[in-house]
Amino acid sequence: MSQPYDDNNVFAKILRGEIPSYKLYEDENTYAFMDVMPQGKGHCLVITKAPYRNILDAAPASLAAAIATTQKLARAVKEAFDSDGVTVIQFNEPASGQTVFHLHFHIIPRFEGIALKPHTGQMEDQAVLAANAEQIRQALAEPS
Amino acid sequence: MSQPYDDNNVFAKILRGEIPSYKLYEDENTYAFMDVMPQGKGHCLVITKAPYRNILDAAPASLAAAIATTQKLARAVKEAFDSDGVTVIQFNEPASGQTVFHLHFHIIPRFEGIALKPHTGQMEDQAVLAANAEQIRQALAEPS
Repeated sequence: MSQPYDDNNVFAKILRGEIPSYKLYEDENTYAFMDVMPQGKGHCLVITKAPYRNILDAAPASLAAAIATTQKLARAVKEAFDSDGVTVIQFNEPASGQTVFHLHFHIIPRFEGIALKPHTGQMEDQAVLAANAEQIRQALAEPS
Repeated sequence: MSQPYDDNNVFAKILRGEIPSYKLYEDENTYAFMDVMPQGKGHCLVITKAPYRNILDAAPASLAAAIATTQKLARAVKEAFDSDGVTVIQFNEPASGQTVFHLHFHIIPRFEGIALKPHTGQMEDQAVLAANAEQIRQALAEPS
């Protein structure tokens, strides 16, 4: 049985514009932005606009939209940072490491020999986030 | 630019029936089975039937089918093992930890206080894999 959705979570607030985010992409069903506590350079997030806690309670159409946007971002970060790989992670419930209870996919550019930093670690410098966001937006704007 | 697909990978062989697997679920576009080197109890995999290397070259429809089956399995493993959470991971390219170059999603039941074992670690006992597979199949068969 799924846990209930609480619309006071930080991603719900981002969707409502109550707190700022480095926006990368938006469509009818999804929103993408920078993770402010990145596990690696260019770490970003894709969330559904619809209010789901995680994959356990998500509607299939919303989930399909989320993975489609995740693919767009995976390709964009690889291009933007010339990364060697990309890790996609989606946590469900605290035992898995989920800390914000709104369905989200992590997209993390990976580089040979560089391990991921801890999840929910240190806040990144705002200028670095802004610069990385701009590189991703440029990659998204290029014809693929 | 994506790397080419090599159809001699182990998951392509599983799809062709050339090597065995503990099958959990199958539909027109996807196939799910036990990971034989689990990072935790009940670790299973969802793959597309279509030949994609990873998320970077996947067709959107195939990717949507894969995440739909991933959701089915996430719910089933949580039910089967009464897990506290579920981790979904999808690796792209060796720098990310990808070792089999056929698009796949890892679904790993999570339990409070139990860390993931290393990726591509030790081969699990066949009897354990068979018993866990049966529990997942039963959960998949129940009305949700």
